Amino acid sequence: MTQETLDRIRKFTEDRDWDQFHTPANLAKSISIEANELLECFQWSDDEYDLEHVKEELADVLVYCRNMLDRLELDEDEIVNRKMDQNERKYPVEKAKGKNEKWDRLD
Amino acid sequence: MTQETLDRIRKFTEDRDWDQFHTPANLAKSISIEANELLECFQWSDDEYDLEHVKEELADVLVYCRNMLDRLELDEDEIVNRKMDQNERKYPVEKAKGKNEKWDRLD
Amino acid sequence: MTQETLDRIRKFTEDRDWDQFHTPANLAKSISIEANELLECFQWSDDEYDLEHVKEELADVLVYCRNMLDRLELDEDEIVNRKMDQNERKYPVEKAKGKNEKWDRLD
Amino acid sequence: MTQETLDRIRKFTEDRDWDQFHTPANLAKSISIEANELLECFQWSDDEYDLEHVKEELADVLVYCRNMLDRLELDEDEIVNRKMDQNERKYPVEKAKGKNEKWDRLD
Repeated sequence: MTQETLDRIRKFTEDRDWDQFHTPANLAKSISIEANELLECFQWSDDEYDLEHVKEELADVLVYCRNMLDRLELDEDEIVNRKMDQNERKYPVEKAKGKNEKWDRLD
Repeated sequence: MTQETLDRIRKFTEDRDWDQFHTPANLAKSISIEANELLECFQWSDDEYDLEHVKEELADVLVYCRNMLDRLELDEDEIVNRKMDQNERKYPVEKAKGKNEKWDRLD
Repeated sequence: MTQETLDRIRKFTEDRDWDQFHTPANLAKSISIEANELLECFQWSDDEYDLEHVKEELADVLVYCRNMLDRLELDEDEIVNRKMDQNERKYPVEKAKGKNEKWDRLD
Repeated sequence: MTQETLDRIRKFTEDRDWDQFHTPANLAKSISIEANELLECFQWSDDEYDLEHVKEELADVLVYCRNMLDRLELDEDEIVNRKMDQNERKYPVEKAKGKNEKWDRLD
């Protein structure tokens, strides 16, 4: 995300005095709610979906994720890289290649 | 997200041959599932939460969002800015300031 | 659900003094969290799923729904029938038969 | 749920020829989607909520749960009681009383 987009999201919240509602718990609820509006695009079919609607709902998830990063003063790259460290350990290529099992079910 | 982090996420998927599982519908499910693992950090209390756990689950949401952007060949800034255009129209400052009502309930 | 099962669920909560945690908001989070553990059974495949796992997660959803009915002193049949009144109006057979569109997209 | 309510739910689906859409995976998505419409009632406040709206969304969750029980030919009391067996083992009264920790964190 560019700095300009980040600034726009932050200004949107500040201008409306919405920081008061953006507790971590409320943002976690919001991310789940928007994730399910995204899921609704695929409720009855995996293949036929309205791409414009998907874009809007995915954007909503991303905006609330950004709000949470901001609220908790987290660095996106830092938390993602730390999680990727874990993922790479949990899913070694030789075991996980081409398989969709959860790490604790990989032999 | 830096290019380096993006590349790491993509390489992780490619190395494991997991693109086959990353259909838009499966990624939508995955985003919701991870969003709810994040929500679980706040299941019984809004204020007491394990920040390290929050970071991990938020990172999972972000990684699956990135997978979906990649799969659908979407530009994060573009879809977010288009949604922010909508949000700014739906929630004019003078109506929405300090209120948490949904746009269709703002008088 | 039989009265015996209902009583067992209530006694479980009472014995542990968990009513204090069962606010409507916490139960709503809990229903969503368990619904997503159920969804996880279908994360990467619609057709291959572990039925025993599905049963457990569906049971968890049902138990939290029951907790919420109890907490809000709601009658399951009453709220379901009232919703079915709405559903029958929104989805008249002649319009909705064989279609998976949302009611506001049915011509 | 009374037999009459059950029959009404089943007839609703049959009349619309919707069994074809009610795969276990689609119903799992639907339960999560409705659970999040319920959660939305509590998005910004735990205490101020629209009870009529809560009833409608909880009813939607219950109807889709019933659809899934039907689709998989499951007995609600059986799966709930089997899960309660597990819950009672995982959360012994003497350890869990008054605590909201997950079973694997109870000392």
